[in-house]
Amino acid sequence: MKILVLHGPNLALLGTREPEIYGMLTLEDINREIVDYASELDLDVTCRQSDIEGELVQWIGQARKEYDGIVINPAAYTHTSVALRDAISASGLKTVEIHLSNTHAREEFRHTSLTAAVCVAQIQGFGAAGYRLALKGLADVLRSTDG
Amino acid sequence: MKILVLHGPNLALLGTREPEIYGMLTLEDINREIVDYASELDLDVTCRQSDIEGELVQWIGQARKEYDGIVINPAAYTHTSVALRDAISASGLKTVEIHLSNTHAREEFRHTSLTAAVCVAQIQGFGAAGYRLALKGLADVLRSTDG
Amino acid sequence: MKILVLHGPNLALLGTREPEIYGMLTLEDINREIVDYASELDLDVTCRQSDIEGELVQWIGQARKEYDGIVINPAAYTHTSVALRDAISASGLKTVEIHLSNTHAREEFRHTSLTAAVCVAQIQGFGAAGYRLALKGLADVLRSTDG
Amino acid sequence: MKILVLHGPNLALLGTREPEIYGMLTLEDINREIVDYASELDLDVTCRQSDIEGELVQWIGQARKEYDGIVINPAAYTHTSVALRDAISASGLKTVEIHLSNTHAREEFRHTSLTAAVCVAQIQGFGAAGYRLALKGLADVLRSTDG
Amino acid sequence: MKILVLHGPNLALLGTREPEIYGMLTLEDINREIVDYASELDLDVTCRQSDIEGELVQWIGQARKEYDGIVINPAAYTHTSVALRDAISASGLKTVEIHLSNTHAREEFRHTSLTAAVCVAQIQGFGAAGYRLALKGLADVLRSTDG
Amino acid sequence: MKILVLHGPNLALLGTREPEIYGMLTLEDINREIVDYASELDLDVTCRQSDIEGELVQWIGQARKEYDGIVINPAAYTHTSVALRDAISASGLKTVEIHLSNTHAREEFRHTSLTAAVCVAQIQGFGAAGYRLALKGLADVLRSTDG
Amino acid sequence: MKILVLHGPNLALLGTREPEIYGMLTLEDINREIVDYASELDLDVTCRQSDIEGELVQWIGQARKEYDGIVINPAAYTHTSVALRDAISASGLKTVEIHLSNTHAREEFRHTSLTAAVCVAQIQGFGAAGYRLALKGLADVLRSTDG
Amino acid sequence: MKILVLHGPNLALLGTREPEIYGMLTLEDINREIVDYASELDLDVTCRQSDIEGELVQWIGQARKEYDGIVINPAAYTHTSVALRDAISASGLKTVEIHLSNTHAREEFRHTSLTAAVCVAQIQGFGAAGYRLALKGLADVLRSTDG
Amino acid sequence: MKILVLHGPNLALLGTREPEIYGMLTLEDINREIVDYASELDLDVTCRQSDIEGELVQWIGQARKEYDGIVINPAAYTHTSVALRDAISASGLKTVEIHLSNTHAREEFRHTSLTAAVCVAQIQGFGAAGYRLALKGLADVLRSTDG
Amino acid sequence: MKILVLHGPNLALLGTREPEIYGMLTLEDINREIVDYASELDLDVTCRQSDIEGELVQWIGQARKEYDGIVINPAAYTHTSVALRDAISASGLKTVEIHLSNTHAREEFRHTSLTAAVCVAQIQGFGAAGYRLALKGLADVLRSTDG
Amino acid sequence: MKILVLHGPNLALLGTREPEIYGMLTLEDINREIVDYASELDLDVTCRQSDIEGELVQWIGQARKEYDGIVINPAAYTHTSVALRDAISASGLKTVEIHLSNTHAREEFRHTSLTAAVCVAQIQGFGAAGYRLALKGLADVLRSTDG
Amino acid sequence: MKILVLHGPNLALLGTREPEIYGMLTLEDINREIVDYASELDLDVTCRQSDIEGELVQWIGQARKEYDGIVINPAAYTHTSVALRDAISASGLKTVEIHLSNTHAREEFRHTSLTAAVCVAQIQGFGAAGYRLALKGLADVLRSTDG
Repeated sequence: MKILVLHGPNLALLGTREPEIYGMLTLEDINREIVDYASELDLDVTCRQSDIEGELVQWIGQARKEYDGIVINPAAYTHTSVALRDAISASGLKTVEIHLSNTHAREEFRHTSLTAAVCVAQIQGFGAAGYRLALKGLADVLRSTDG
Repeated sequence: MKILVLHGPNLALLGTREPEIYGMLTLEDINREIVDYASELDLDVTCRQSDIEGELVQWIGQARKEYDGIVINPAAYTHTSVALRDAISASGLKTVEIHLSNTHAREEFRHTSLTAAVCVAQIQGFGAAGYRLALKGLADVLRSTDG
Repeated sequence: MKILVLHGPNLALLGTREPEIYGMLTLEDINREIVDYASELDLDVTCRQSDIEGELVQWIGQARKEYDGIVINPAAYTHTSVALRDAISASGLKTVEIHLSNTHAREEFRHTSLTAAVCVAQIQGFGAAGYRLALKGLADVLRSTDG
Repeated sequence: MKILVLHGPNLALLGTREPEIYGMLTLEDINREIVDYASELDLDVTCRQSDIEGELVQWIGQARKEYDGIVINPAAYTHTSVALRDAISASGLKTVEIHLSNTHAREEFRHTSLTAAVCVAQIQGFGAAGYRLALKGLADVLRSTDG
Repeated sequence: MKILVLHGPNLALLGTREPEIYGMLTLEDINREIVDYASELDLDVTCRQSDIEGELVQWIGQARKEYDGIVINPAAYTHTSVALRDAISASGLKTVEIHLSNTHAREEFRHTSLTAAVCVAQIQGFGAAGYRLALKGLADVLRSTDG
Repeated sequence: MKILVLHGPNLALLGTREPEIYGMLTLEDINREIVDYASELDLDVTCRQSDIEGELVQWIGQARKEYDGIVINPAAYTHTSVALRDAISASGLKTVEIHLSNTHAREEFRHTSLTAAVCVAQIQGFGAAGYRLALKGLADVLRSTDG
Repeated sequence: MKILVLHGPNLALLGTREPEIYGMLTLEDINREIVDYASELDLDVTCRQSDIEGELVQWIGQARKEYDGIVINPAAYTHTSVALRDAISASGLKTVEIHLSNTHAREEFRHTSLTAAVCVAQIQGFGAAGYRLALKGLADVLRSTDG
Repeated sequence: MKILVLHGPNLALLGTREPEIYGMLTLEDINREIVDYASELDLDVTCRQSDIEGELVQWIGQARKEYDGIVINPAAYTHTSVALRDAISASGLKTVEIHLSNTHAREEFRHTSLTAAVCVAQIQGFGAAGYRLALKGLADVLRSTDG
Repeated sequence: MKILVLHGPNLALLGTREPEIYGMLTLEDINREIVDYASELDLDVTCRQSDIEGELVQWIGQARKEYDGIVINPAAYTHTSVALRDAISASGLKTVEIHLSNTHAREEFRHTSLTAAVCVAQIQGFGAAGYRLALKGLADVLRSTDG
Repeated sequence: MKILVLHGPNLALLGTREPEIYGMLTLEDINREIVDYASELDLDVTCRQSDIEGELVQWIGQARKEYDGIVINPAAYTHTSVALRDAISASGLKTVEIHLSNTHAREEFRHTSLTAAVCVAQIQGFGAAGYRLALKGLADVLRSTDG
Repeated sequence: MKILVLHGPNLALLGTREPEIYGMLTLEDINREIVDYASELDLDVTCRQSDIEGELVQWIGQARKEYDGIVINPAAYTHTSVALRDAISASGLKTVEIHLSNTHAREEFRHTSLTAAVCVAQIQGFGAAGYRLALKGLADVLRSTDG
Repeated sequence: MKILVLHGPNLALLGTREPEIYGMLTLEDINREIVDYASELDLDVTCRQSDIEGELVQWIGQARKEYDGIVINPAAYTHTSVALRDAISASGLKTVEIHLSNTHAREEFRHTSLTAAVCVAQIQGFGAAGYRLALKGLADVLRSTDG
């Protein structure tokens, strides 16, 4: 079972800035944790990051043939991107949205998500640990509907 | 480590109605799963359900002395209850909000949460499996900030 | 055919206060009229009143096994209760919403109803007589879809 | 006691289109039912239909001298016509608004009524049977305030 | 100089209903006053009333060839008719909008005017006397820009 | 294949007023072009204009038996008429909405369309040429779904 | 009969700036016209101008003992001053609001008036001539209700 | 003269949590202060607390026969409860609303009060001392209107 | 301890107009009561009234050096004055906002207060007696935080 | 005459996903049809697709020197991209906006277009056939204004 | 070249309160800096401060004859004063708006400016140094458009 | 001291289109001016332009290690990009936002800025000269907080 893990804009800076909000792990640390945990769950994961909305859209568009599901942290694009929403919806892949921080406890424009409506589930506020919960949850969903 | 698991209004009916939305497990089934999984995580959990907003408020108010954290599915009160928000905030307990369905994919009035802003994290869309993810996530949060 | 008639908050005071708005009948008078008229229609009715949102939610949740339909005057909860809406929807019972006064002719916050969307029909402005119309209308709906 | 029954725009098509929403009775069938039921109630009714807002306004303006009350299904004009509202208000006649379907369960622009605020009562969701309930309710109102 | 005076919906009832709001003059009385006062101002006026939005639109469309200006009381259509606005704008005729009552002191939906923006001027709150002021004002405008 | 072409309010004035916006063709010129082009496409068209919302509603209501599709320029009623929307929807006929000007480049109240949601397609901004595109587009739609 | 004529902020500049909007008359010219026309109507008028909201409030507060009515052009304060609204309301004097330009044809924030609701009437768009219409209209109102 | 003092949801926790916001007095301390001060004012008070909206509604409904006035801190229900509003209004008792903190200096959803409109007065921001001011104010109101 | 008492626009008219709303005391009567009651509380008060927003701003700006606290009735400026808000905030003085009437029971634009957020407390609806409560409350606040 | 045809985000997936919405043609099929039809119209077209908003902006910026007009399907960026709007406006090229589906019949956030206001015309709902209509319409516009 | 520098409400307190927000310079210090820097730029400046909206309006009204441009810090009136906007617009003088702090980083009601739309430019967030940038910028604008 | 100057979408076209709005300088001219002026101020600047939101995000993310501050003209992304806002905020670099035109005098959707709240200052309306003011202002800010 293959899962695509996508990190959105500004996440390449993780661990180096604002650790009080985002924790002290770098994106590489997080990806390593994801890969390790995925192998425990018997999942095959690929991790990618882009600051460019359209590049994320492309990757999702191509994912359909290669992956069974997506875990995505759309970061800032959560609140502004109809294109990502359309990409997820068009991909037909079960997708879990994740946020490091609890967006409801931040500025009001972060309280709405354009992408969540086309995902199966959403996890937020657990920091980097949220990726593991998302993988676990997604794996269960895929396996239970798998056959 | 003691966790209080609270189920809000209409959840006593789980498993008997609208299984296509909420799954086929009854609340008792779910509570049994929660208790089992909690013991795996070495957590001590109590599960309670109430249809009455004020009763949930009371339980949260009293939880502070006895529990280390809360997992709550506020159901319909998510969108209307300032009282629950105040209760969670006043309790000082780390709280995880959970929803069985993905509220972003339902009616617009379900897209806002009055309670999420005072919780540490939120999980939705994984059905009954979400409770396990919430327990796991909360345990990690409590243990990492614990000592 | 069994019908549950539910009266929401503040309705226990009927007949004793603001008769120019709500008429001079007490809730007991109204319930007696309901029972009498129901027997004319060959219906078996139970009447209950509660000021507590969650208690109304409970009664609706339990009604499914015992009743064929519901007539409900959600009073103030009409405008604020997602929990009642979910309860009616989850009950699967055909429900008629009734208001003594014409809510459209009152304050603007009374112009919206959270519960009406999950009811089959709504009657308002006829005072206590509205209960009889609601019973008649509900009976017709139930009988025409009955078999 | 004379009652004017007014049907608004598009209602001439009843019974021939979208029977799953509006039922299988034609407007003529409904008018026949209304006339029959009216005579049971000892009421004298006239039924008229118009697609033209201003024509409905005219009929209401002229009704004052001839009729004791109005039952009106303003259909689409419910949501857009200040002119109908002014006409009903100016007529001084007790008026009952009726809708075949439950407007609260349809598009959001159908949730508001410009006309309801100047009517004594409103009935919706009972299909064609609603006209009978409206007549019955209006007759009671007129008789109880009559002398 | 020829002026078209248009009365909108429900104004045929003037003088017979709600005299405390609209005064005791009938539309005929008002038209007689308009004609008399117009001749004092050396104006040639035609007065028409319609309850039908589209008929008012037609009259305005045809007015361009025959009249020099318009005085219009769009009544309820003030707040809802883009068609009247387009008609006035397309006619190219200087138009004065008049209301018997002060719309700002009534319901909030009467505080906006779709038609006023394409008129040269607006008068409201003077009752029937407003028509005379409107004629006088319009005559001055037409004469000062006339040649 | 028979098509009904409907022109809404104020369109009878085309060619005589504001040619910088609406072009220099009269409605008759446009209708002649439509008829000519229709015969090229082997379509049988009828063209009608009305300033009266309810008359347009009537024509649409009656069209179902006689026509295969509708091209409509609802003009000002686009933004205010729920009645036209209901008529189009009830007719069951594939309908194309057309506007001479680009409504998005005009006042904000022209940016919303009540009728477009129940049409299959919409064309705007091409002036009178838009009718030909609409006919061509509608013919293709009807033929591809025809049999 | 004594009338107070009040000119609000920026009106001292009339005739010297933006004559295409406000005309070429200075405030003095306008006041002279007002005084002349008032004597024709047998009215005694005082004209005052202030740029200071509170000074206008004071004058209105003191007017009650000395004047029978007020004509006010609140200019920019029309849209922002609750204080002027309260002053007019507290004065108990019949007041006519006047604007030189048609505020409905200008920026959207000029479409609402806080003061109009407590005035008896409003005139706008006639330029300086509007003051004469306002005086005439006010005189008629005062005389008809006078005794 | 008998006064009912009602404390809303979460107030049972006073003094034990967030003393920087709510002060260090427990609800018992506050009630003792209220009783002492009331006897100075020659008032007879009963103090009650509930987390349940409907229970507060019930107490207000029953208060009419036994009490002369109400002092209520509706806490979180201030912003969401139409039921409390209706209860206060139906009780016919002069009611003073009190808040410990200044709600205007907190989250925006705390800036509106559904209940204040049906109270005679409101006091907020004085902490526990506000209850004494409320009692004093209410006593004066009751005595001045008493006879 | 020195307190500045400020009365905003239109309050100089107290006692002479609309006594049913504002009571029968003149501003002088009220000021006398304030001074008397202040001396009971061992406070030194100065009372000032202005209709001019900027004058109130000035007085508050200068108060910082001379006074220990402010009681202000901003009247109409409550709802429109950012300048007063900034003045109170910049003064650094503990300020209590008071209103004679209950603003929540009046027009909707009176339900919001720009100034309350920077005051420590707010009292409304007690008429002139509110000033005494405000003084008492403010004195307690100042003394409890004083030394 | 050279036309640039631009396809926005997610359109590279056409024909492979959701054929019930977008038809069964791939983007290559559509481009082939466009090229064929263009040569019938004696137009020279270039077709490009990008998922990246900024790349579309670049292409439009460079188009000015090389092309005579643009046909663009901005897809998801229609509703969110001020940058595309500015690009089209700055290019000075006549542009036609096209959508495969009827956006008015989809989610509410698809009902507004940031780009349409700076285009000459808009076509939607005709599926892939819409490109041909857009080319035809644009060619006519360019030729009629050309010389 | 003569420039009028205007300081709005509460700015007389600069340097004495909230230095963390507004810096430690008094208004006199700032004015001295302005005058010094102006002479470097060969400008002749006059500095004035008022807390009174109408006084600022007057000064701007009179500035037209004497000054070549205006630098204004409207402070709190930025967000509420249509009168200042009208004054700047009527003056016909090129005006630069300046704010000491970055209003976008403060309360939401400070994010809108009524005055900015009629100014040529706006500078905010540079503290007192902003006045120098404003003078420099304005001088360049005036000189480049000067002759 | 090193400064990064970023130009957003469509700015590569400067000087070639719409010179009446944006001036006649090309982006190269402006960059040359910036570099020259920067050397006067003893600053080391790098200028970059991108039409791609994500590329700007990347550059800001990398700027932290190399630059002391940023001057950015986000152009169209000002109003839509949460990603740019997050990038600026995460960079921890003092940033000045600049716009060539006065956005407040343009379409309403340009009146809000998502990015300004995380910048220290904002300058708009001075055309290309604004970059020099921004550099000067930023240099002063950096130097005053520097050591």
